[in-house]
Amino acid sequence: MNEKYKKDWVNKRKARKQNLEPDDLFTALISGDRSALSSSITLLESTLDADQVKSRALVEKSLPHSGKAIRIGVTGVPGVGKSTFIEAFGLYLISLGKKLAVLAVDPSSEEGEGSILGDKTRMHNLSQAENAFIRPSPSGKNLGGVTRKTRESILLCEAAGFDVILIETVGVGQSETMVHSMVDFFLLLMLAGAGDELQGIKRGIMELADLLVINKADGDNLKKSEMAAREYKNAMHLFPANANEWIPKTAVCSSLENTNIDTIWKEIQSFQNHTKVNGWFDKKRKSQDLRWFNESLKEIILHHYLDQKGAKASVQEFEQKIIDQEITPFEAAEILFKKWVNDKSV
Amino acid sequence: MNEKYKKDWVNKRKARKQNLEPDDLFTALISGDRSALSSSITLLESTLDADQVKSRALVEKSLPHSGKAIRIGVTGVPGVGKSTFIEAFGLYLISLGKKLAVLAVDPSSEEGEGSILGDKTRMHNLSQAENAFIRPSPSGKNLGGVTRKTRESILLCEAAGFDVILIETVGVGQSETMVHSMVDFFLLLMLAGAGDELQGIKRGIMELADLLVINKADGDNLKKSEMAAREYKNAMHLFPANANEWIPKTAVCSSLENTNIDTIWKEIQSFQNHTKVNGWFDKKRKSQDLRWFNESLKEIILHHYLDQKGAKASVQEFEQKIIDQEITPFEAAEILFKKWVNDKSV
Repeated sequence: MNEKYKKDWVNKRKARKQNLEPDDLFTALISGDRSALSSSITLLESTLDADQVKSRALVEKSLPHSGKAIRIGVTGVPGVGKSTFIEAFGLYLISLGKKLAVLAVDPSSEEGEGSILGDKTRMHNLSQAENAFIRPSPSGKNLGGVTRKTRESILLCEAAGFDVILIETVGVGQSETMVHSMVDFFLLLMLAGAGDELQGIKRGIMELADLLVINKADGDNLKKSEMAAREYKNAMHLFPANANEWIPKTAVCSSLENTNIDTIWKEIQSFQNHTKVNGWFDKKRKSQDLRWFNESLKEIILHHYLDQKGAKASVQEFEQKIIDQEITPFEAAEILFKKWVNDKSV
Repeated sequence: MNEKYKKDWVNKRKARKQNLEPDDLFTALISGDRSALSSSITLLESTLDADQVKSRALVEKSLPHSGKAIRIGVTGVPGVGKSTFIEAFGLYLISLGKKLAVLAVDPSSEEGEGSILGDKTRMHNLSQAENAFIRPSPSGKNLGGVTRKTRESILLCEAAGFDVILIETVGVGQSETMVHSMVDFFLLLMLAGAGDELQGIKRGIMELADLLVINKADGDNLKKSEMAAREYKNAMHLFPANANEWIPKTAVCSSLENTNIDTIWKEIQSFQNHTKVNGWFDKKRKSQDLRWFNESLKEIILHHYLDQKGAKASVQEFEQKIIDQEITPFEAAEILFKKWVNDKSV
């Protein structure tokens, strides 16, 4: 196959995929077709205007069919064993008859075919399972864009009948706060005796956790892990109670030896029961939605201004003045906005 | 004095105060005149346009003279003994030759002469001290407005030569996150053995603390407090390290018996040295300023739109649609913004 032909062929395949009508895609999607789900998310991630129109129609149609899954955030620094944990946990859920979708979020990573292969390699057995769907992070360095795409991917997975959605992220940047604000339950993976400096988790994340799991509790590491879990349990007890009245739990597990994976699922179910009974489950979802609305509105409006000619340069100019203590941040914001309005550049 | 006369007199006095020119006020302010500082903050809080113009000029002139103080946030739930602590701590600082300003922030409280009297009553000895300046929260239910006024009050206090600024807040609402983002050091007051449910502190606040102080460590309570401090110390040790590489400390003190107040000041100085040496002190102030700039810009722009006729009603309409799962938050934000732009209401 010569290069020219190959290129044509790839373009044609792309064109065919992109020409899928939302109605057809939707029908396949809600029947639970994984490849339709995959194409739908690809459509979502496309930056072409025509695709955007289609993906919006698709999300709109899917919305009433969404919301039934439990959305679980899983975070932990590299080396904590996230992939092995997700594989063990996922296979366990599938053995219970669940349908599991795993969405990985890492706004700092460059996307490419490589990362898809990466995900499928690192969770080999799970990716083979019929009731599992694994999808790497949507591309983009813009957290806002990644957020929207991830949130909409969750909706599509739910419409496709997946009943457990895992959102995986690395606990070192801003992404875990973002993930926390789109899930029902937040699980933090840690290691025993790695020391403060090695854990590398960003401060403030621990208090977000609904469940703290000490992973790699096997072999020589088991006793140390159990001790660490006890220490963390005491520490969590000193934390103030959550607004949802759930006292965060601690557990040990071995993803390698497949021990205690069931305990973790039980804790999550217990959380779900607890918060559904006290009304917090639905309340939190609604407040998450309204918060995203407010944040999106502010972002869109701000970008509307920033896209004007010269706007970014004047922002930078004011930032320098603020750093040089020539103007307060509030005054700078007011002057800049007045300038934008007077320039009629809006 | 008849009522008519009294009213006239009050109005005249007000008029005189309001007619103070920024230049005169500024001269008195940087000479360290407390009543000039007080008038300046009053000007800042005024909603009259003429006063706003003056207060902006005043803040602008004060800006180069600001920044030299250490800004300390003090939080803790009602009953933890904040006033007694601030009084004991403040009198100690004054005994060291420091000039101390206390700004109280409570966005939920209604302001009035009453709250000023309230503050002076609850910190009787401190309010008598010549080198102390106590000011209650600026009025307003709007966190953004309160934030700006408080931040600008800090600048004015610094220009007036105060070298320690305490920003006091109640650890139950949103205000403590706001205060955390405008101070160098964050001190959390707690009680021994009050139990999770009694502490009442909002979740996530503990991880913001640079120093956790168990107050009321006196009499029968001393042993219990020391034990609580040890427990918290162990818990804090399990927390991940701060970006500034400061390991949060724990201390006990009695504001009543005046014990360990000096230790607390030593910890704060040690923090200041530590973060000045590693460059974090200045870095944090700059990033706080830039964040306020970004946030203010977004708020101003959003309000510019929300002030348009019918805008708030359409926001509410979309919020309802979001709650009813008829539209995603992102789609709602985009449609609403397009509508605003097409209406040419901007």
